[in-house]
Amino acid sequence: MHGTAALIGIDWGTTSFRAYRIGADGSVLETKAAPAGILKVPDGDFEAVLEREIGPWLAAAPALPMVVSGMITSRQGWLEVPYCPCPAGSAELAGALREHATRAGRRLHFVPGLSLIGGDGVPDVIRGEETQIIGELAGEREGERGRQAIVLPGTHSKWAFVEDGRIVWFATFMTGEVFAVLKEHSILGRLMAGDAFDEAAFARGLSYARAGPGGLLRRLFSARTLGLFDQLPASAIASYLSGLLIGSEIVEALDCLPEAPGAREITVIGHSELALRYRGAIDAAGFRARTGSVDASPRGQLLIARAAGLIA
Amino acid sequence: MHGTAALIGIDWGTTSFRAYRIGADGSVLETKAAPAGILKVPDGDFEAVLEREIGPWLAAAPALPMVVSGMITSRQGWLEVPYCPCPAGSAELAGALREHATRAGRRLHFVPGLSLIGGDGVPDVIRGEETQIIGELAGEREGERGRQAIVLPGTHSKWAFVEDGRIVWFATFMTGEVFAVLKEHSILGRLMAGDAFDEAAFARGLSYARAGPGGLLRRLFSARTLGLFDQLPASAIASYLSGLLIGSEIVEALDCLPEAPGAREITVIGHSELALRYRGAIDAAGFRARTGSVDASPRGQLLIARAAGLIA
Repeated sequence: MHGTAALIGIDWGTTSFRAYRIGADGSVLETKAAPAGILKVPDGDFEAVLEREIGPWLAAAPALPMVVSGMITSRQGWLEVPYCPCPAGSAELAGALREHATRAGRRLHFVPGLSLIGGDGVPDVIRGEETQIIGELAGEREGERGRQAIVLPGTHSKWAFVEDGRIVWFATFMTGEVFAVLKEHSILGRLMAGDAFDEAAFARGLSYARAGPGGLLRRLFSARTLGLFDQLPASAIASYLSGLLIGSEIVEALDCLPEAPGAREITVIGHSELALRYRGAIDAAGFRARTGSVDASPRGQLLIARAAGLIA
Repeated sequence: MHGTAALIGIDWGTTSFRAYRIGADGSVLETKAAPAGILKVPDGDFEAVLEREIGPWLAAAPALPMVVSGMITSRQGWLEVPYCPCPAGSAELAGALREHATRAGRRLHFVPGLSLIGGDGVPDVIRGEETQIIGELAGEREGERGRQAIVLPGTHSKWAFVEDGRIVWFATFMTGEVFAVLKEHSILGRLMAGDAFDEAAFARGLSYARAGPGGLLRRLFSARTLGLFDQLPASAIASYLSGLLIGSEIVEALDCLPEAPGAREITVIGHSELALRYRGAIDAAGFRARTGSVDASPRGQLLIARAAGLIA
């Protein structure tokens, strides 16, 4: 452990656990990651996992405030926290924190997810991404990007629009999961030979996502027929389908955003292989993909902790 | 066996086998159906299945012409027949028939599928449906419905536009397969409790398919959030998703059709539970769903046989 931490932040999702010792300036002093997502916690004993993963941190600084975000605050998690309605920024999230004491007497502060009822009356939700988005904004100079579009790629990717530090709109796209089930279980998957990334095929999928009339249900079949007509090798079908789906998501998201992205710039949070694909896809769609902070979660946790008065 | 047959027609698909003894007037004198699709034929011995299923018909009329359509003419079938390019009617299909003699010396005539290269350079294909569409047109009085839109619901549903007895356009929508993989393998399926048809939920899905901006990737998540917000019981999610997908297909298809359906009428071929849902969905979209002939396949086979000079 190096440096003086002002906060311990936990980003606890469905499949992974990440803990941060965070300095008062937002710097991450130490990180602990484990494949201990909430669905893999034996007997729902979250406290035992916490002790196992960061016991020494807890023992070394018994009074350090702790902020916890992610699916850990869902019904399947440790403590269900009701959604905070959108628009929301760090102040609203801080005001909706839920405090919970562990058996050992440690006080944890759980960050709520956000809900948004669309103009069509249909709700949407995020949990965990709100903290990342707030953290992403923390890195900005005042007024630098007052209104911007942000995407968080993932199994369910999330798009958000922020204005003056508050999330004013977001939407969920099931792109990653649709890709996975089609690849594993559909006729398209049975035509694929491997999934090594093929950049040209990915680009072709992106391009077809923007072509002509109709929508995704019609375009999907092209992943079969292009193979059938020897225009696409079996080894390239997975990349083509990935491009077609991500490209379709971008078309849909641009159509949904409350306004066009300022300076034609879209921020991509995340540094995975998938985030890299999204950046390429956004560039191909004629926008500029900006790379978000690697420390969006801990930065957001710090900002929320400060807004809640947990730290100076 | 009753009546004098002019033709034996076989509709042999991926999962099922159907044979018809067809009268010269297009009436179906006898039908034999078996779950003996081409993927279930042991050792690729199609002739053995033919003998097993309709041996007595073959023996009773050794000289009766036979027309075979469906996926049996694909690479995985008995005899691969190259696609016939679209536009095509019974004359083009008749001209592209492939003859094949069985070990027993019986001559079979295989109907080709159709291919269409879209304005975007991407190919589409049908196999089997072309015969049903031709058969559907056979029931018409001259000029009654010169230009019409037809849909054939299925795992991959097919839309076609016909003009003066010829198929001038078609497109494939992977709706049924997308529904199946999402139901069986995605988070949406895990939220479902049963799949009894819920008409109100289906209608709500249809309606949301036409609502607001964005597309299917965004709308899919509503099948989760409506449940989460107690707006949709778990028992209704499958029907809602079905409505959302079929409704999306109809929006896409109407966008793709070369022209608006004449008299706002769309013909639905098929009499399955699924076809019934399509008829309801088409009505809900403000069009008139017309019920196609139950005997579309054998009627088409007869028309093609006649155009080929196999029968008078």
